[in-house]
Amino acid sequence: MTATLLALYKRPDGGDEALATFWRRYRDEHMPLIEKVPGLRGTKISNVAQHYSGEDLIAVTEMHFDDRAALDAAMASDEMRAAGRNLREIAPGLLTLVALEESPA
Amino acid sequence: MTATLLALYKRPDGGDEALATFWRRYRDEHMPLIEKVPGLRGTKISNVAQHYSGEDLIAVTEMHFDDRAALDAAMASDEMRAAGRNLREIAPGLLTLVALEESPA
Repeated sequence: MTATLLALYKRPDGGDEALATFWRRYRDEHMPLIEKVPGLRGTKISNVAQHYSGEDLIAVTEMHFDDRAALDAAMASDEMRAAGRNLREIAPGLLTLVALEESPA
Repeated sequence: MTATLLALYKRPDGGDEALATFWRRYRDEHMPLIEKVPGLRGTKISNVAQHYSGEDLIAVTEMHFDDRAALDAAMASDEMRAAGRNLREIAPGLLTLVALEESPA
């Protein structure tokens, strides 16, 4: 069963300018670091087009791995640590990060 | 472009029993209501297998629609209102709900 790492980003303080800076650094700095993570099979970045309830999220990124073992190895890698350090700089306190497993309906 | 409604659930107070009750009512009451929503093309329910950072989420559900117009119509439907009322009963204050649009990488 494939495993997904899901990253959710809250809105930064500082209005449209802070949001534009987040997106620029996310794409130009963070995603190139994520793409170096071993075992990563694909990513999907989504904008939050509308917010209805709860946390004021702005972006959701899925990172796909072959299985949970590959995801665990990725989380322990130097490449992921470098990506994490970068993220703490560009989105301090704004990240929720979880591993998902598909649930039988 | 397809549109996705993403529902994120935080952990309920009350330990394992509250969590089991949430899952039971989510599957037995809530999802049957969601399945009646007009225009819904598919759903994917995931358990949070591990939490690394940020909000203590326990479940993530994707609901897929043909496009943003279909998602908007679904959000305005009586069926979605009924599902929303049910959810406020079974998971009060625990839901984050957003509409996603895939972002060019």
